[in-house]
Amino acid sequence: MVDILHKAGIKSSSLDDAYKALTTREGLSGWWTTDTRGDSKVGGVLQFRFGAGGFDMEVLELHPAKRVLWQVIDGPQEWIGTTVSFELRQEGDWTLVFFKHEGWKEPVEFMHHCSTKWAVFLLSLKSLLETGKGAPAPNDIKLDSWE
Amino acid sequence: MVDILHKAGIKSSSLDDAYKALTTREGLSGWWTTDTRGDSKVGGVLQFRFGAGGFDMEVLELHPAKRVLWQVIDGPQEWIGTTVSFELRQEGDWTLVFFKHEGWKEPVEFMHHCSTKWAVFLLSLKSLLETGKGAPAPNDIKLDSWE
Repeated sequence: MVDILHKAGIKSSSLDDAYKALTTREGLSGWWTTDTRGDSKVGGVLQFRFGAGGFDMEVLELHPAKRVLWQVIDGPQEWIGTTVSFELRQEGDWTLVFFKHEGWKEPVEFMHHCSTKWAVFLLSLKSLLETGKGAPAPNDIKLDSWE
Repeated sequence: MVDILHKAGIKSSSLDDAYKALTTREGLSGWWTTDTRGDSKVGGVLQFRFGAGGFDMEVLELHPAKRVLWQVIDGPQEWIGTTVSFELRQEGDWTLVFFKHEGWKEPVEFMHHCSTKWAVFLLSLKSLLETGKGAPAPNDIKLDSWE
């Protein structure tokens, strides 16, 4: 098992703003992909669509201003069954987002790609919360020809 | 043992340009930190300095247009003994950079930070090679108050 781990610090004093960006369609479509559908409630399914495909996430946990946990139920084979979590913590003027995409079976090349790409989107989340403008797909930074 | 893995695709047809950016002081100071010193030769030591500290890397392998391997010999305790490698591969119009920072003992919070921060710098490398302008420290994206 190998994991993708990230931490992004956002200059913000509002854990609630970060939590909203992770748990509403409007928020998610502002930093990850403009084509976000579904229900962000425990037991609900969120659908994230991109030019090259997409992911369906079942929402497993929602702890306001604190933690979000999803499990991938549809998408690329390597993603199915993996979990994606966001933990929030305020430190002074910074909202810290601890991100984990856990449960990869092997450190395949696609995992390397997804690791960098998650960072691209976490920087988009940071930009959304700091400036009001993110860079969600399809306006994200492309890292490969097939994107 | 846990690893930081990334893949960044650069719109470029020159593996040599990417290799130079990873193996010359001028190149390294164009995307990682402007304060880069030392000798990029096998057995040599490169010194990378930042506001909050820095890293000394012994150059273990240099394979032109293909692979670079460093080992950390000084810096934060968690980094010492870990290895950093870059593998290059051309695919059509894209130069792919496979990055690994291997040998972390534990997935500490600092590792989460470094994972995202490596992506920030790989995007700076991408920008340097695609546009001629990177965003090396001290002009990098800051992810925490202590940076």
